[in-house]
Amino acid sequence: MKRYGMMIKLRPEKYAEYKRLHADVWPEVLERISKSNIRNYSIYHKDGLLFSYFEYIGSDFEGDMALIAANPVTQKWWELCNPCQQPLDTRAEGEWWANMEELFHAE
Amino acid sequence: MKRYGMMIKLRPEKYAEYKRLHADVWPEVLERISKSNIRNYSIYHKDGLLFSYFEYIGSDFEGDMALIAANPVTQKWWELCNPCQQPLDTRAEGEWWANMEELFHAE
Repeated sequence: MKRYGMMIKLRPEKYAEYKRLHADVWPEVLERISKSNIRNYSIYHKDGLLFSYFEYIGSDFEGDMALIAANPVTQKWWELCNPCQQPLDTRAEGEWWANMEELFHAE
Repeated sequence: MKRYGMMIKLRPEKYAEYKRLHADVWPEVLERISKSNIRNYSIYHKDGLLFSYFEYIGSDFEGDMALIAANPVTQKWWELCNPCQQPLDTRAEGEWWANMEELFHAE
């Protein structure tokens, strides 16, 4: 299992909409995430920053993420969510959410 | 079990020291954290921001945190770590790490 921490900005004027969307995520979106071997997935907000934490239990992360990106329902979901977010200028090429560096972990 | 996401700033000039400290956290510090019912604890860094995620399996969070704060070894550990960190101006009264709001969770 591999843990991921990711960061992105939330546009302040979109906070309420983003919160409402994530209080009732579409079942097909959740199902696709689970089929792509993502577990224990949380998103936190503070001061216009979003942090996500999840655990990946599969063996082909890129492939599993590609299956999420290719899912038509997920694409429609992202059409609602992405305008709420503002990617970090410092993100790596190809990233939307920017990967963070794990400095510490304890079981 | 309750999940926590917390945020604090890392002083850029202290990044290397903070990373080195957390690559080899003192055993007594880890033991006290575990005794205080904290599990699956990770700290991530990006762009001068630290994000921590952990799961609390106890029934008295304030009491368990007070036991950590009262631990002499932990106090010496904090004497090394706290100067690396800069609390958010927007943190709640009494906070060091600022609690974030959970907007989403999926198992």
